[in-house]
Amino acid sequence: MEKNYLLIPGPAPIPEAVARAMSTEMFNHRGPRFKKLIEELTFSLQKIFQTGERLFILTASGTGAMEAAIVNFLSPGEKVISLVNGSFGGRFADIASTYGAEVERVETPWGQPLDYEGLEARLRADNGRAYRAITVVHNESSTGMLNDLKRISRLRGEHPALLIVDTVSSMGAIDLPVDSWGIDVCVTGSQKALLLPPGLAFISVSERAWERAARSKMPKYYFDLLKAQEYLEKGQTPFTPALSQCVALREGLRIYFAEGRENCYARHRSMARAVREAVQALGLQPLVKDPRYASPTVTAIKKPEPVSVDQLRREMFTRFGVEIAGGQGQLEGRIFRFGHLGAVTGADLVVGITSLELALQALGYPVEPGCAVKAAEEVLKAG
Amino acid sequence: MEKNYLLIPGPAPIPEAVARAMSTEMFNHRGPRFKKLIEELTFSLQKIFQTGERLFILTASGTGAMEAAIVNFLSPGEKVISLVNGSFGGRFADIASTYGAEVERVETPWGQPLDYEGLEARLRADNGRAYRAITVVHNESSTGMLNDLKRISRLRGEHPALLIVDTVSSMGAIDLPVDSWGIDVCVTGSQKALLLPPGLAFISVSERAWERAARSKMPKYYFDLLKAQEYLEKGQTPFTPALSQCVALREGLRIYFAEGRENCYARHRSMARAVREAVQALGLQPLVKDPRYASPTVTAIKKPEPVSVDQLRREMFTRFGVEIAGGQGQLEGRIFRFGHLGAVTGADLVVGITSLELALQALGYPVEPGCAVKAAEEVLKAG
Repeated sequence: MEKNYLLIPGPAPIPEAVARAMSTEMFNHRGPRFKKLIEELTFSLQKIFQTGERLFILTASGTGAMEAAIVNFLSPGEKVISLVNGSFGGRFADIASTYGAEVERVETPWGQPLDYEGLEARLRADNGRAYRAITVVHNESSTGMLNDLKRISRLRGEHPALLIVDTVSSMGAIDLPVDSWGIDVCVTGSQKALLLPPGLAFISVSERAWERAARSKMPKYYFDLLKAQEYLEKGQTPFTPALSQCVALREGLRIYFAEGRENCYARHRSMARAVREAVQALGLQPLVKDPRYASPTVTAIKKPEPVSVDQLRREMFTRFGVEIAGGQGQLEGRIFRFGHLGAVTGADLVVGITSLELALQALGYPVEPGCAVKAAEEVLKAG
Repeated sequence: MEKNYLLIPGPAPIPEAVARAMSTEMFNHRGPRFKKLIEELTFSLQKIFQTGERLFILTASGTGAMEAAIVNFLSPGEKVISLVNGSFGGRFADIASTYGAEVERVETPWGQPLDYEGLEARLRADNGRAYRAITVVHNESSTGMLNDLKRISRLRGEHPALLIVDTVSSMGAIDLPVDSWGIDVCVTGSQKALLLPPGLAFISVSERAWERAARSKMPKYYFDLLKAQEYLEKGQTPFTPALSQCVALREGLRIYFAEGRENCYARHRSMARAVREAVQALGLQPLVKDPRYASPTVTAIKKPEPVSVDQLRREMFTRFGVEIAGGQGQLEGRIFRFGHLGAVTGADLVVGITSLELALQALGYPVEPGCAVKAAEEVLKAG
């Protein structure tokens, strides 16, 4: 019998009830039913974002909202610091350059902590207040690194640079108080911790970022947030929204709040620790050494000799139906990744860890049978 | 019992089987299952577009693909002719201006035919071949006007201006041979005749348009088609696609091809004639006078005295569950619109026409009971 266990960094598995809610009939997106829906969704998302500021629902994947986060608040020629320690950090830098910003990449090797000191030094030296924005990815799913957003927020301090953050693979799974951390523009996608299929993206905007929007000279049309605000006031979106995802999001959010934010954070923390302990019991190395920076939603593991990542993924998938991810870009062939976010539980992870143990054995890597599952169980037992 | 009949210009009703297919579980968008799916979908969409050229699936609504149609093939400062005779024609002009093109709007009043002579005169006088593109909406759903794309294509002739067309509310419902009409860039959305919920958009690109893409200097990231091509070669999309819509699209296309293209065109033609005959039997005036320009998918009707459009829509919706649309922009309050596209049949239209008759009577407009349904029946009988 074919049965699959999806343990990739996204799209994450979705609850059955959300899948069923996707089967909605169509209705008018310019009528009272949609108005009620978008108002309810916006309000609930603001609670997850922990923000009282503006929040918009866009029909696009997360990258579309990343583009919106740049083109609405900056102008060509403006200076931007992009913190980069993985594939997704580079994306903000690419978008900003594409639209004519003068981007300074502050890079560290993939899998290493961000260069917090380098950021601090640049901001201190910037007496003319030339930097207009700092971009950063909260949870770098290409490496399983959780960047220290609170520290970045502190380092930014009173500097007027906007703090623009990609939380695609963290929002909902990790405590992330957007307003109290002073995040000006915060972007996420529907298909990670928010229990929905891909197709929607969400973006919050602080008041001081909003003041910049009117002056921004980067071109935009589909992602124009001033227009989105104008329509939101009527309970609409400027362009036809992905209605099915909107209806299903209500169901996803109901499930999310039934678990409760704190319990959801705890579940993700516990799953991450379980995977980490399990792979270490097998003698494998997580890519991110310092557990303080270990992502609660994605764990990247260095591949052991003599196994190849392709072999390992194929073995786990064809024999057990378990799908994990490989590495991206410069890490391709060097790491494999477990996603543990969205509708995934510790019990699902045990399936993944068991299949990892068996696949490694089959591929000639020495394994003490059961050791990884035992290590995971001890974490899960503690809750 | 609450039961709704959606007869707006979109989102159109979807078949039950498509709704059920939206309930798909999640899977890896960078694996073989998605590769097979996107290849199959692209191939089927090319058949509907009647094109052998490149075709891309974007996670966005139709306007996103309209943006892609501009920003990938033009550079700031280039001259563009935008033919405008309704709300959506103006959208292409707005996008092109936003991204720095020098746009010449060739306008006629909403609901009037395009200024074909004006286009011809401009192209003739353009000895320096300065115009780089002509934009036009095939089916203007704001007015129910079907523009004569074949004639525009003939007028363009050997002029190197790209022909960029919005077929959001026509593709699939109307015979539209993209290659043989020389359409360079053709855009549509999922939520109209293609039997799917909103959230995907499709764009085809001719070889000569593709050659321009490499030289285009307008900024783009999310809608970058060169990147889309690079990923499509691997059976992927650059960014996480709306997986549920992709899975459901396969079901929608199965239903579409089971009906057959010609039958589908005939159904839409017949529905349009039925509505037109019905409203004329009631003494009402279609906004588009000349039946040769009457849209097969949307019919706009001038409101009769003493009825207000809001009253009429409310009466039809609250008493019969029938939802029709009002006018947009300058036509707000002056027209009402029937959408008859996607999973709508002649039988559904009879419900709409009956409720129109009864609502008009209730609002004090004199009606000979049954006259409109009788007129519609005569059209539907002829098939």
